[in-house]
Amino acid sequence: MSSTYGENLKLSIFGQSHGAAIGMSLDGIPAGLPVDFEKLQEFLNRRAPGQNDWSTPRREEDRPEFLGGILDGFTCGAPIAAMIRNKNTRSGDYDNLKDCPRPGHADYTAQIKYGGFQDSAGGGHFSGRLTAPLCIAGGLCKQWLEEMGIRIGAQIASIGTVGDEALDMVHPQLDRLDPMFPVLNPKAAADMKDVIHFAAKNGDSVGGTVSCAVTGLPAGIGEPMFGGVESKISQIVYGIPAVKGLEFGSGFYCSSLYGSMVNDAFTVENGTIHTATNHSGGIQGGITNGMPVIFTVAFKPTPSISKPQQSISLSAGENTTLEIKGRHDPCIVPRAVPVVEAAAAIALYDLILGNTQTNRRK
Amino acid sequence: MSSTYGENLKLSIFGQSHGAAIGMSLDGIPAGLPVDFEKLQEFLNRRAPGQNDWSTPRREEDRPEFLGGILDGFTCGAPIAAMIRNKNTRSGDYDNLKDCPRPGHADYTAQIKYGGFQDSAGGGHFSGRLTAPLCIAGGLCKQWLEEMGIRIGAQIASIGTVGDEALDMVHPQLDRLDPMFPVLNPKAAADMKDVIHFAAKNGDSVGGTVSCAVTGLPAGIGEPMFGGVESKISQIVYGIPAVKGLEFGSGFYCSSLYGSMVNDAFTVENGTIHTATNHSGGIQGGITNGMPVIFTVAFKPTPSISKPQQSISLSAGENTTLEIKGRHDPCIVPRAVPVVEAAAAIALYDLILGNTQTNRRK
Amino acid sequence: MSSTYGENLKLSIFGQSHGAAIGMSLDGIPAGLPVDFEKLQEFLNRRAPGQNDWSTPRREEDRPEFLGGILDGFTCGAPIAAMIRNKNTRSGDYDNLKDCPRPGHADYTAQIKYGGFQDSAGGGHFSGRLTAPLCIAGGLCKQWLEEMGIRIGAQIASIGTVGDEALDMVHPQLDRLDPMFPVLNPKAAADMKDVIHFAAKNGDSVGGTVSCAVTGLPAGIGEPMFGGVESKISQIVYGIPAVKGLEFGSGFYCSSLYGSMVNDAFTVENGTIHTATNHSGGIQGGITNGMPVIFTVAFKPTPSISKPQQSISLSAGENTTLEIKGRHDPCIVPRAVPVVEAAAAIALYDLILGNTQTNRRK
Amino acid sequence: MSSTYGENLKLSIFGQSHGAAIGMSLDGIPAGLPVDFEKLQEFLNRRAPGQNDWSTPRREEDRPEFLGGILDGFTCGAPIAAMIRNKNTRSGDYDNLKDCPRPGHADYTAQIKYGGFQDSAGGGHFSGRLTAPLCIAGGLCKQWLEEMGIRIGAQIASIGTVGDEALDMVHPQLDRLDPMFPVLNPKAAADMKDVIHFAAKNGDSVGGTVSCAVTGLPAGIGEPMFGGVESKISQIVYGIPAVKGLEFGSGFYCSSLYGSMVNDAFTVENGTIHTATNHSGGIQGGITNGMPVIFTVAFKPTPSISKPQQSISLSAGENTTLEIKGRHDPCIVPRAVPVVEAAAAIALYDLILGNTQTNRRK
Repeated sequence: MSSTYGENLKLSIFGQSHGAAIGMSLDGIPAGLPVDFEKLQEFLNRRAPGQNDWSTPRREEDRPEFLGGILDGFTCGAPIAAMIRNKNTRSGDYDNLKDCPRPGHADYTAQIKYGGFQDSAGGGHFSGRLTAPLCIAGGLCKQWLEEMGIRIGAQIASIGTVGDEALDMVHPQLDRLDPMFPVLNPKAAADMKDVIHFAAKNGDSVGGTVSCAVTGLPAGIGEPMFGGVESKISQIVYGIPAVKGLEFGSGFYCSSLYGSMVNDAFTVENGTIHTATNHSGGIQGGITNGMPVIFTVAFKPTPSISKPQQSISLSAGENTTLEIKGRHDPCIVPRAVPVVEAAAAIALYDLILGNTQTNRRK
Repeated sequence: MSSTYGENLKLSIFGQSHGAAIGMSLDGIPAGLPVDFEKLQEFLNRRAPGQNDWSTPRREEDRPEFLGGILDGFTCGAPIAAMIRNKNTRSGDYDNLKDCPRPGHADYTAQIKYGGFQDSAGGGHFSGRLTAPLCIAGGLCKQWLEEMGIRIGAQIASIGTVGDEALDMVHPQLDRLDPMFPVLNPKAAADMKDVIHFAAKNGDSVGGTVSCAVTGLPAGIGEPMFGGVESKISQIVYGIPAVKGLEFGSGFYCSSLYGSMVNDAFTVENGTIHTATNHSGGIQGGITNGMPVIFTVAFKPTPSISKPQQSISLSAGENTTLEIKGRHDPCIVPRAVPVVEAAAAIALYDLILGNTQTNRRK
Repeated sequence: MSSTYGENLKLSIFGQSHGAAIGMSLDGIPAGLPVDFEKLQEFLNRRAPGQNDWSTPRREEDRPEFLGGILDGFTCGAPIAAMIRNKNTRSGDYDNLKDCPRPGHADYTAQIKYGGFQDSAGGGHFSGRLTAPLCIAGGLCKQWLEEMGIRIGAQIASIGTVGDEALDMVHPQLDRLDPMFPVLNPKAAADMKDVIHFAAKNGDSVGGTVSCAVTGLPAGIGEPMFGGVESKISQIVYGIPAVKGLEFGSGFYCSSLYGSMVNDAFTVENGTIHTATNHSGGIQGGITNGMPVIFTVAFKPTPSISKPQQSISLSAGENTTLEIKGRHDPCIVPRAVPVVEAAAAIALYDLILGNTQTNRRK
Repeated sequence: MSSTYGENLKLSIFGQSHGAAIGMSLDGIPAGLPVDFEKLQEFLNRRAPGQNDWSTPRREEDRPEFLGGILDGFTCGAPIAAMIRNKNTRSGDYDNLKDCPRPGHADYTAQIKYGGFQDSAGGGHFSGRLTAPLCIAGGLCKQWLEEMGIRIGAQIASIGTVGDEALDMVHPQLDRLDPMFPVLNPKAAADMKDVIHFAAKNGDSVGGTVSCAVTGLPAGIGEPMFGGVESKISQIVYGIPAVKGLEFGSGFYCSSLYGSMVNDAFTVENGTIHTATNHSGGIQGGITNGMPVIFTVAFKPTPSISKPQQSISLSAGENTTLEIKGRHDPCIVPRAVPVVEAAAAIALYDLILGNTQTNRRK
């Protein structure tokens, strides 16, 4: 039940970081939807490792091979299946992880859960590498949403203590976001890169936040209670490694305010209903109200750091000092941006497929 | 797909605020589990309305009638079903909600989704009243977790800008939390009540946060990716009305820090493995590590306020001013505390039921 | 996971034969669908006990009380919940079932599974009485299918060795089927009743088969593999107590034939495509082809018989002779006819709700 | 929702007959289970085409490549993923299927459902070839069941009108069943082969039935209502192409009998409880009673026949005559035997994983 998501579409993700391949199967997609492979590859490239001086030097092309579900550039109704072969694997780097778990990683919890049978190389199935197949599914859903006029974009909202200019929650400035380092304020971008380099130089890592906006969504998408837009997005977002927080609209901030400051007043303009503000992030009762859906995701610092850390030897039952070799990103946030977009795309496309509440009182 | 939750247990919630009844069916529970009805009622009383001067004057006893699934004080293996009849209903108070949606409520989104067929009285199925059946299910799961030595407690972490002393993430002070207004610092409690009264006096409302801690959980609970503890808790938590944010462990705060400050170092003491800090909130890779699970939920201010608000007349297609009569809480947070505990109990009990990963390498 | 069904709609059934009530919650239904309560009651009456001289003398009115989901005669988008209180309960009749299981019933398997905690009175949750809430859900789905021009009818195809005239698989004679004892050939009807009376007189019971036809279904309903019409209908049908066989179209018979005799040839008539025969029962590859969907269900004889039977005393660990008192039907088949129709209605309505495969190449 | 199965395990099947590959992902399997690849290959070979003179001359080795989930011969807790590349593809053989659907196949229903976008070559995702990944999943589950002492075997019960000796429902003679043509009576085997050759010689095909027995199952497996053993097995079995009927135990036959003839009397022998007969096929109330689980599956004749058949031209809207070239089995039944075993293995292993009903009254 772990690596499967969805009510109307069914996404299954498989593979381990240093296994034969990673991949996904995506069932329940209508036939006849166009697939733009080039656009998908551009989307995957935003997440791919090894593209600049601060991300992990592990180079993987992340070119998916499609095994089924697409014919002549259109979905054919069969499950869409794709895989990416792992090439640049170096399992030897991870030989001692079963005995000496890395702080902040899933090494220890996997050891307890799977009793030593887990594939621990590079985190195995818990690796951030598994977000590549998530991005295959999400990149496809994103294309199909775009065909409906629904756009998804995300911003690096902060890295460490350096924040970007906030996205406008009523008119999010998606056009101003560069795909590879999407920040509104160039000065903030430069400062963020400095923070990343500083962390890297010190053998350390740093966290950050990503804000995502979805525009063009019609009102009425989402279901009450556990099927709401927030519930469905959160279930995927918390499946992204290193995510520790998620808020919608004004989120935590609005919990410190009075209702009269936060309620989004309705207004009619030229026959169109909208709200003057968007503290609710476009969602009320779990259902879209036609305003942009806005949410922010908190990423902890990459747990892999070069600095010596205190850990334990499970076999010896004693404390020890761990130095992580391997390859890793000093800051995962820039590469996480398309993953957050993918999560939103999958959750929303799933909800749209299931949106059968179409009876209307005349 | 909306009001149903769970992989191993299956929870279905039904009813509307001013309909005949609200209730739930809870399937997949093992037979032979004891049910302490008195304890359950005490738990439900924490959520019930009309118990003090700041909560809604609508009085409902919230005494569930069990329709099936329990025999002679033990679960019998059949689905557990219970309902609470709505007594103190006053649908007339809500006559104009279909035409003039309340800002911050689900009136407008329900109108769009259900085309005017929705039960709009008191928010219908979107009402906070639906958290009563959630608490029936959660109160039962909480009892069964307690039998395993797992305790769940939650704190009012803040109301408006007044914060309580933070819960200790390594040794949460659950014993110091009073069930009806659970705050560690008495001065903070007094200030919070002042804020609530201030809001009430002004016909306004105020938001807040709730922090929840789960102790006694064994390591190894939860599944990778979309089946992780965070994903499962978040799916229910975002089903609670007015929730706009959720973070685990140090959450948003840790996104501003360096890895060397946040990674929870492992340590062995008297043969027991634990982490020295608990920034991860007891979860790594979606799986419990044996430390307390900690999370914080942000509630926006109750959208119902007495102050005049700007809204629209859907029939006339023009702006109008709305004054909400009805009955409502100036601050939902105190009553939301057991609901947050219920959400955690249901999510964790579901994961424990499904924890079949029991093979261990000798 | 036991008493929950559906992908797009979510049906939860609860209650025990001699508990407080039986009922159901049906989530995922669009708002704005009309509900004809009188028609529903007529449908439920076909299943209700105590209506003629061969069915159980236990009298239950089976009038559902709706707890939510319907407003002013239309579905309102919230889960539809209903219950029937059990009135004519006589648990005392079943006192020794935990020790001495009735052959053919679920007493023994429930004892093993639930370790003695099960509600054994009248079979508890395993009782045929639980088909009443199934018929509430099914009766509603049947109404909504009828609004789309889809009709469901079923026939008593055989009782014991007495068979009725076969339903025409291309033009099923639904109009000739009387709701209370639906048989095409009056002579067969009389002979069937004789067989039932003969069984009753001997303190015995007798089995039979029910054939069901669904007309007016468009082509293209159903999903490949495990989501096919056969898979979905079978999952519900085998949830009906006493069902031991199910076949579609020519079923077992066609397994003895040659392909040239069984393949349903396509033909065009006045621009309409149909098949000349309907051995496939209207389904190919799990998907409807526009012909009537036809299936036949085999019911074993009611396991409750008055004749002395060999059983065991679980406490004493020795063989014993059992004489069943209680009240029971000598033949369940006539009352099972609407239950089979309900199963078909629920499965097909679920599939229709999920039928999002709407892209068409121009 | 189509090609995904399971509550506790999650099986996703993907691929098309003449696409790049077919495969599966199997999630939710405990870590530490051994995998015997050789044994799995032997199992797959029983289903593989091209092995004798009556099966399709299309030769495929059906050697799965595992992409994840297995490490050093043991499951590692990650989803198990495997694929088989399609080598011997000849899509050209199927060029006219979109216009002229083959009677008895899913060509027409796929055309309607997917609007011409479907992969029609060789039936695409509807092809019997998709039972190969089903057998990968089933072959693995079968191994793990065997480790628990649970054996699954199936017999060709009939081909055309030639029936084998019936399996003993109390002591099924699994040891006497040859893996490649499993029949108890050698004379029946010879006659069956004659029937197949006769059909082949005439450019025709022939149907048959497969009986499956599962021994060693403990009592108490399965859930009530829609989660019963019959419901779960039937959902997979009807996902196998060409299946048109399914019965458990005495099935249709017992519907013609009296209860006193069919009720399986309990008896104690040396402290062990069993039933003297096994008309119920080892299942009461959906739950195993400790006797062998027995069921029989009806396969219609392979719809592909060489004889000219009447069909239609969809583009011309007129009747036409179709002659199928391609390659096909005159009788699918011998190759379907392991597929039926696989279906039973998957359904039962899923139920065993979810068997959390373990509380026992002392």
